[in-house]
Amino acid sequence: MDTALVKRAETLTKERLAPRAAGYDQQACHPKENWEDLWKEGMLGLCIPRPYGGRDVDPTTYVNVIERVARGCASTAMTLHMHSTATKFIAALGTKQQHERYFSEVVEQGKLVGSWGSEPPISLTRTLLVETSLTPVPGGYHVNGVKHFCTMAGAAGYYLVWGALGGESDMAKSLVQAVVPAESPGMQSIGSWDPLGMRATVSPGTKFTECFVHEAEVLGPGGAPLSCGVIEQFALGYAGVYIGIAQGALDYTAEYCRTRVFAPATEPIGADPLIQRHLGEMAIALDSARLIMDRAAHEWPDADPARRGLLSAQAKYAATEAGIAVTTRCLQVCGGRSAMKSMPIERAFRDVRTATLMPPNADSMLGIIGRSQMGMSTAAFKPA
Amino acid sequence: MDTALVKRAETLTKERLAPRAAGYDQQACHPKENWEDLWKEGMLGLCIPRPYGGRDVDPTTYVNVIERVARGCASTAMTLHMHSTATKFIAALGTKQQHERYFSEVVEQGKLVGSWGSEPPISLTRTLLVETSLTPVPGGYHVNGVKHFCTMAGAAGYYLVWGALGGESDMAKSLVQAVVPAESPGMQSIGSWDPLGMRATVSPGTKFTECFVHEAEVLGPGGAPLSCGVIEQFALGYAGVYIGIAQGALDYTAEYCRTRVFAPATEPIGADPLIQRHLGEMAIALDSARLIMDRAAHEWPDADPARRGLLSAQAKYAATEAGIAVTTRCLQVCGGRSAMKSMPIERAFRDVRTATLMPPNADSMLGIIGRSQMGMSTAAFKPA
Amino acid sequence: MDTALVKRAETLTKERLAPRAAGYDQQACHPKENWEDLWKEGMLGLCIPRPYGGRDVDPTTYVNVIERVARGCASTAMTLHMHSTATKFIAALGTKQQHERYFSEVVEQGKLVGSWGSEPPISLTRTLLVETSLTPVPGGYHVNGVKHFCTMAGAAGYYLVWGALGGESDMAKSLVQAVVPAESPGMQSIGSWDPLGMRATVSPGTKFTECFVHEAEVLGPGGAPLSCGVIEQFALGYAGVYIGIAQGALDYTAEYCRTRVFAPATEPIGADPLIQRHLGEMAIALDSARLIMDRAAHEWPDADPARRGLLSAQAKYAATEAGIAVTTRCLQVCGGRSAMKSMPIERAFRDVRTATLMPPNADSMLGIIGRSQMGMSTAAFKPA
Amino acid sequence: MDTALVKRAETLTKERLAPRAAGYDQQACHPKENWEDLWKEGMLGLCIPRPYGGRDVDPTTYVNVIERVARGCASTAMTLHMHSTATKFIAALGTKQQHERYFSEVVEQGKLVGSWGSEPPISLTRTLLVETSLTPVPGGYHVNGVKHFCTMAGAAGYYLVWGALGGESDMAKSLVQAVVPAESPGMQSIGSWDPLGMRATVSPGTKFTECFVHEAEVLGPGGAPLSCGVIEQFALGYAGVYIGIAQGALDYTAEYCRTRVFAPATEPIGADPLIQRHLGEMAIALDSARLIMDRAAHEWPDADPARRGLLSAQAKYAATEAGIAVTTRCLQVCGGRSAMKSMPIERAFRDVRTATLMPPNADSMLGIIGRSQMGMSTAAFKPA
Repeated sequence: MDTALVKRAETLTKERLAPRAAGYDQQACHPKENWEDLWKEGMLGLCIPRPYGGRDVDPTTYVNVIERVARGCASTAMTLHMHSTATKFIAALGTKQQHERYFSEVVEQGKLVGSWGSEPPISLTRTLLVETSLTPVPGGYHVNGVKHFCTMAGAAGYYLVWGALGGESDMAKSLVQAVVPAESPGMQSIGSWDPLGMRATVSPGTKFTECFVHEAEVLGPGGAPLSCGVIEQFALGYAGVYIGIAQGALDYTAEYCRTRVFAPATEPIGADPLIQRHLGEMAIALDSARLIMDRAAHEWPDADPARRGLLSAQAKYAATEAGIAVTTRCLQVCGGRSAMKSMPIERAFRDVRTATLMPPNADSMLGIIGRSQMGMSTAAFKPA
Repeated sequence: MDTALVKRAETLTKERLAPRAAGYDQQACHPKENWEDLWKEGMLGLCIPRPYGGRDVDPTTYVNVIERVARGCASTAMTLHMHSTATKFIAALGTKQQHERYFSEVVEQGKLVGSWGSEPPISLTRTLLVETSLTPVPGGYHVNGVKHFCTMAGAAGYYLVWGALGGESDMAKSLVQAVVPAESPGMQSIGSWDPLGMRATVSPGTKFTECFVHEAEVLGPGGAPLSCGVIEQFALGYAGVYIGIAQGALDYTAEYCRTRVFAPATEPIGADPLIQRHLGEMAIALDSARLIMDRAAHEWPDADPARRGLLSAQAKYAATEAGIAVTTRCLQVCGGRSAMKSMPIERAFRDVRTATLMPPNADSMLGIIGRSQMGMSTAAFKPA
Repeated sequence: MDTALVKRAETLTKERLAPRAAGYDQQACHPKENWEDLWKEGMLGLCIPRPYGGRDVDPTTYVNVIERVARGCASTAMTLHMHSTATKFIAALGTKQQHERYFSEVVEQGKLVGSWGSEPPISLTRTLLVETSLTPVPGGYHVNGVKHFCTMAGAAGYYLVWGALGGESDMAKSLVQAVVPAESPGMQSIGSWDPLGMRATVSPGTKFTECFVHEAEVLGPGGAPLSCGVIEQFALGYAGVYIGIAQGALDYTAEYCRTRVFAPATEPIGADPLIQRHLGEMAIALDSARLIMDRAAHEWPDADPARRGLLSAQAKYAATEAGIAVTTRCLQVCGGRSAMKSMPIERAFRDVRTATLMPPNADSMLGIIGRSQMGMSTAAFKPA
Repeated sequence: MDTALVKRAETLTKERLAPRAAGYDQQACHPKENWEDLWKEGMLGLCIPRPYGGRDVDPTTYVNVIERVARGCASTAMTLHMHSTATKFIAALGTKQQHERYFSEVVEQGKLVGSWGSEPPISLTRTLLVETSLTPVPGGYHVNGVKHFCTMAGAAGYYLVWGALGGESDMAKSLVQAVVPAESPGMQSIGSWDPLGMRATVSPGTKFTECFVHEAEVLGPGGAPLSCGVIEQFALGYAGVYIGIAQGALDYTAEYCRTRVFAPATEPIGADPLIQRHLGEMAIALDSARLIMDRAAHEWPDADPARRGLLSAQAKYAATEAGIAVTTRCLQVCGGRSAMKSMPIERAFRDVRTATLMPPNADSMLGIIGRSQMGMSTAAFKPA
């Protein structure tokens, strides 16, 4: 792990990113100033190869940077993670020309790359299917279809749009990713964005109508996004986000208990064995999740996609359970006052519940883990 | 149980109260139109004796009316409960003149009565203490102090302000309630109101500075609010609120599972055994909490205050656990789409977590229940 | 509810049945003296119509009698329940001649009736299938097959053996019950009986080899055992057993906490808020399960088989969860000393875990409850 | 970690120790043949310095050897752990002469050393107090008092008896350990040994009546057992025991699910998503506990006693929760058949519940973990 970088992320979060989080949440707006800070620190290149100016950090460093950022601003951490994973796909599946084009814009101009896979009629966690089609036309493709949960819509430089070549339904053969430039005609934002939490991820729907992408803007052969060992990184990084949110909430709560005195008592509530017990249960839960995440990151480089499916399922599941349990409990321990937006833990409570809904869901992850015990398949997704 | 009245509450909620809930939540404003509807249905008099035009319903009817309203609008249900319990205190401790004055204004003019007990430096669930003082002055008292969580602030006709005669700290002797008219000089709203949930309960802080109350506006002898068998009704009604919120969320979720189909599947997700299991776990949890609430209400009339302390602790604790478990799980089952405010369950999730923070807290209730097993005290609160 | 009878069961249990429980458990032998006592009290006729000398108690009385007995001796309660449900089948499906024959032997001679359904190659909770066959021969049938979990083997007067007419696999048409007399040739006890708990139910395997039953010893038409509304009573009564075991353990634990002092402290451990919390969690869990059981019993008489499927699933599931949680926790609260057989709670821990494994299992019950939320089938079993 | 040694322990367990476990359990007898095998493998010297012929393994190797043995025979693992920790005390507090005497007998003769701390009137987890006294007499001390849970009573070569010099109650000053030879006069076994599980640890009570110990048989200065950084190893090793038991049960259960088919189905039950979910929940719980244990062992060498208090509390607590959850669930998944002693998982269920009752208890450990979050004391025990 690059301890210095993780420490830098922690400091940056405390000093610059966290103070803006409540405002972004309230307005449900893009965390542009935070992205700017991350760019200046070189953190938009976490998954970009060094020859192109990136940091190409190891997975342990990666999840810990995400986790530190999430302690202060979950939406910033999530968008950083989506962007980083999109660049990881480009690194894995792109040509040299594509690398040069996209990575330089990220590193030199601070451009972000979104990743848009979800669609209204489908559930990725049940069957990985996309109905958005790439129809061959001279020089490229026409993209048609509807995406939702389009994170960073209107603010990134490019969007990795998951589509099926020719609209075929056999994902193992037809699934590709088009790197659609932000200014492309044929993209229309639809629907509103007013969610429970993760509000600064700004993820409305997008309708594609004969949106032209150049053939040089499509990655890899059909099916590659499923087999290249990158898709599993989504869940790994989510674990970092959830753990970071919960850690921020727990740190706040522990400090509250250590110092808060209610009349007529003269000792802080942290002297109460029942409060100590709550803190103990939260701490051990979060601690466990962190160890599982770190183990996954540690084994990642040598793991094949099936193993990564298992590792990421373990990490995301444990972080989901711990994240929800901890944030719910923090509010209970701090009491009614903590439901106010003047304390940061109600945002943590909303952010974790929202972020943990991203695919694959808990049922799916438990299935993966359970099957691993019997030597059965541990693929992260079940493609159509 | 007055089945017809409960049914009327259910219909009224579906047709008129629920459709306004999202708007009240968004604006964090008083649910005035809902109160108006409740008044017209005679439901502001649930706890007002019949000679004064009230309905004086039995406890089972009471908690079920609250529960039905909460299915559609938690804040409306909570304010109705606070108001009703305040009128119950007036009924129990007031003089004939007080009954005539306050009840007629409620019944004939639709005035609401708030109940303000909490204060910033104290935790009622730990030690029931109020520092707000009633200092005798000619013809009445000066109220001085700071209250927070002042539900219905600025919208009710009267506020039952919990204070200590002469600022004494022995609550068993000094605690009284002043029925402060809304227009009284010396009341100043302080702080903001921007909470996680229960947003339409509008409960900012209030500062009292030599606020004069007439001696005819103070209820009962010192200590009476603790011993008259009404204070336990708070927790009983909270149970109705939590269960109602969760029931609304579960009903929505079950219908979603029964009908929602994701491509390429052709059956709704409710055909999935894992979904059935989630629904089963939620249903039995909520069912249990409801039975405990109904049992408490059923035994209420013959129960002394200590027994009411236990019954209400059982009801509130079970409803808290079920409410939180169910609403959290509803979001998991319905998935990412349900984090959007276009579905009502994210509001349920926020409302339950917020409302369950009201005193006494879960630790306190478990203590009561645990002590009851050993023949020890089951008083709802521990007065200073 | 016949309160006097339930009270009598409670007293009988304390005074006579409970003191023998440890011995029966140790030896894994039939609780014959307890059966004798139950017979003398007329409790072998709980489900026998009054014209035949039975008590024909209502379901609420029934489950509460079972529950009271289980507080002191779980195996006695379970065998009483198995016997009673077997007589219920005879009452529902038998002819007048059958009623006269079997009921008089129960009432007058204290004979017990077992019910043997399970078989080694099948799982009733997954698919209700029996492979034991009744092959027509002159004057009756030959029973062939292997049963296991043959409760009261070698000690009852009759065994209700579940078999398929002609060995057919369509249970809705072929399933019948033969009332096999204990002394019938062709029955051979196989396997051993050395289980975790419920040891005095003495339930080894039995092999049937051309065991002749007279045609007057077979109940009702094919399929009747599934449709007559009695099979659901198994799960309802199990709930009584589990709750009774847990109640016995909790009562013991509460008394232990109320009185046990460890040096150098001078107060009993029940003064510890953490102990109170444990007792509170156990009490509310058990209380919930009891309310669900009592509600099921209350609604039973007017419920059709599908509704009984749901009611019994709710009752058994809630009792399973509460039973396991409570007995596990009782040991934790009482500490290492309570793992000794000189305290009764380690037996409760073993008995609950064992008894709750009887079909239908927890997954199945949650499925029933979950489907009920969507208007889908709530049948207790899925026949082959 | 000495991977080869851990692997050797695993193989030894499978081939020789595990097959004897059911028999030891049934008879509640000392696992003498298993001890003999461990001795021959040099595993009685895990915590004995190498100059004396021991292995002096690192903590990670240590807990993993304990864990591997526990997979097959929990009582063997627990006695190995008690013995090893007793030798660790001797290593830490003994003189060169004591080292030479005791270690040579262990290494060369296979003698075991027990550790007897608990007493009937006290609860070590609440207040670490011993009332057994060491009264100075010429040449040594008279030991007087009563111990219970005297593991390996009658079978070890020496017993480390925790006593107070002069019967003083200030443990920080008076607590010492006498290494009492097995053949000493004045020791009398009292009480019986018939527990739920861990039956082959054979731990009845012992009464000491003017039992003489030579002054060369007492370790270190008064208070040293609390401050030397060894007492915390008890809880660390317990974690290994619990995890090993649960791992054995889970492995068995996974294999059962992978292969068991019930008619009329043709696929094994492991194909059922609900079964996969159970396995998933068990696997992740156990996995978490293992990571926490390994982390504790990894940090152990550089940790001071307060830190070891926290690390061991984390390890024991996580292992307790996982151990109980996993073994209970294994029985549920495998169903009624698994309550039979012919399957090993009912023993696992009993052993875990019993072993996890050893001090410090779960409440105490959560308190330690909770306090660590607020910078408060994390000592493993609270001495009188």
